[in-house]
Amino acid sequence: MFKVKVPATTANMGPGYDVMGMALTLYNEFEVQEKAYGIECIGFGDIPLEENLIYTSMNRALNMYGYKKDGLRIIAKEINIPISRGLGSSAACIIGGIMIANKLMDNILSKEDIIRIGTSIEGHPDNIVPAVTGGMTVSIYEEDEVIYSKVNVPKNLRFVVMIPKFTVSTHEARKVVPESYSKNDCIFNISRVAMLVASMNNGEIEKLRIATEDKVHQPYRSKLIPNIDKIFKHARYLGSKSEVISGSGSTLMVMIDKENIDFKEKMQGFLKNIQGSWQVRVLEVDTEGAKIL
Amino acid sequence: MFKVKVPATTANMGPGYDVMGMALTLYNEFEVQEKAYGIECIGFGDIPLEENLIYTSMNRALNMYGYKKDGLRIIAKEINIPISRGLGSSAACIIGGIMIANKLMDNILSKEDIIRIGTSIEGHPDNIVPAVTGGMTVSIYEEDEVIYSKVNVPKNLRFVVMIPKFTVSTHEARKVVPESYSKNDCIFNISRVAMLVASMNNGEIEKLRIATEDKVHQPYRSKLIPNIDKIFKHARYLGSKSEVISGSGSTLMVMIDKENIDFKEKMQGFLKNIQGSWQVRVLEVDTEGAKIL
Repeated sequence: MFKVKVPATTANMGPGYDVMGMALTLYNEFEVQEKAYGIECIGFGDIPLEENLIYTSMNRALNMYGYKKDGLRIIAKEINIPISRGLGSSAACIIGGIMIANKLMDNILSKEDIIRIGTSIEGHPDNIVPAVTGGMTVSIYEEDEVIYSKVNVPKNLRFVVMIPKFTVSTHEARKVVPESYSKNDCIFNISRVAMLVASMNNGEIEKLRIATEDKVHQPYRSKLIPNIDKIFKHARYLGSKSEVISGSGSTLMVMIDKENIDFKEKMQGFLKNIQGSWQVRVLEVDTEGAKIL
Repeated sequence: MFKVKVPATTANMGPGYDVMGMALTLYNEFEVQEKAYGIECIGFGDIPLEENLIYTSMNRALNMYGYKKDGLRIIAKEINIPISRGLGSSAACIIGGIMIANKLMDNILSKEDIIRIGTSIEGHPDNIVPAVTGGMTVSIYEEDEVIYSKVNVPKNLRFVVMIPKFTVSTHEARKVVPESYSKNDCIFNISRVAMLVASMNNGEIEKLRIATEDKVHQPYRSKLIPNIDKIFKHARYLGSKSEVISGSGSTLMVMIDKENIDFKEKMQGFLKNIQGSWQVRVLEVDTEGAKIL
């Protein structure tokens, strides 16, 4: 019948806690088929239907518009986004489900509708918005509305995700973030996030190191990711331009110039001696966002 | 001999406390003449030479490079930037002084040198950087270095400054800003300043209202500016896109579309009935920064 393809997303990007996000060229693909009756999901492991985020998100969108669908099979065709690693796998399922609902309802939803419904499910917009729009985004969620704006990403930047075997629960990762900040730390992040948007827009890659500094969440979450300092230090040694925790972890992301072609191999070699069975992938920014194939 | 022209600057622009700044088409002009011996400043009122910021800044820059100058007259030729009103009059004097020193030293200083010396005198870079570079800027001052990045300003934006007769001392205005913030207020400003840079760059004028919201300094400083709420409310009624305190006040700045041609007259009429002898000026972004004429 049809397929839905949704990109992975990285949130925060250093100083932009709950605000900045970016879509990456790593995708989940869901295939949707008609069947005689009932709804089933295939290839999602042992999750009961009522807890399957793609199913519940589809249903939520259908219900909002008074639409009912019977006779559907949703197949997890290609699942490349790892779960609970800070690469937006839940946002991908939520947006996948809403995109399926939209297709079933003859595309009555705008991108803005999809973003609003998705954010109401996810609770924050930083992964949802880029999963829908592609690219790098600034998002604000207020009074059930999402306002977002896009940020240019320099064409010669590559995003190296280092994905460990262990997970960090988003719940745990949110708990370690403090409830208040000193004025200095607050202004520190204000200056860095403004610099991040400006230097990305201007293609000033050399400013990304200072622009991705953060005092709001990473100093606290770093404790949940063993060897993070050692790994970032080696990435810098190999020429990375910036090192951040992707979302709330456990994935670490570093930005490199595309000319740095042996970075991946060298980093992979280094990580062999670090506990965590780290996988290294070099990605680009996805510029299209979720789409129906 | 020669003249130096330095633009007014507005800092903070809502959420960007100590970080965002913009140069405006309102200028001070200083004329420099040779004389037989001694150094004198003319037209600066009763300020003793040793407390005259343009003289002390010039001297600081000359001393840093082991240069001595005798026989100079600095004339305040045109002083359009009002003092202690949040429009960067001290940054203009500091940069004016350093620019004079630079000219006397045969232009050995780069823009970056001028910015670094100026920031070391002023203590923060938000007015200094745009006074030198023109345009809208993000600035970070750390370990005696200034890193900055430029932000595009939509061509159809105009900046209406409303300057009252009363002043707000920067010292007092800094004292009322709290020493700590809740996580929510901190993230609030992170999201707004990121949106400010992104929406300016993208020319998304309709997003400037939310992008210039602030919970770091304006809620506290508003108390120092009588009738601010009433004035901002009327500006919105007349079609302004955003309303902020310029720097630490007392000037209020609102952004309008250039098509809103009767805004000035209507706002001036309204302010006649508000205490403070408010002056209204419609300005554009200055794109050149300080220069020698």
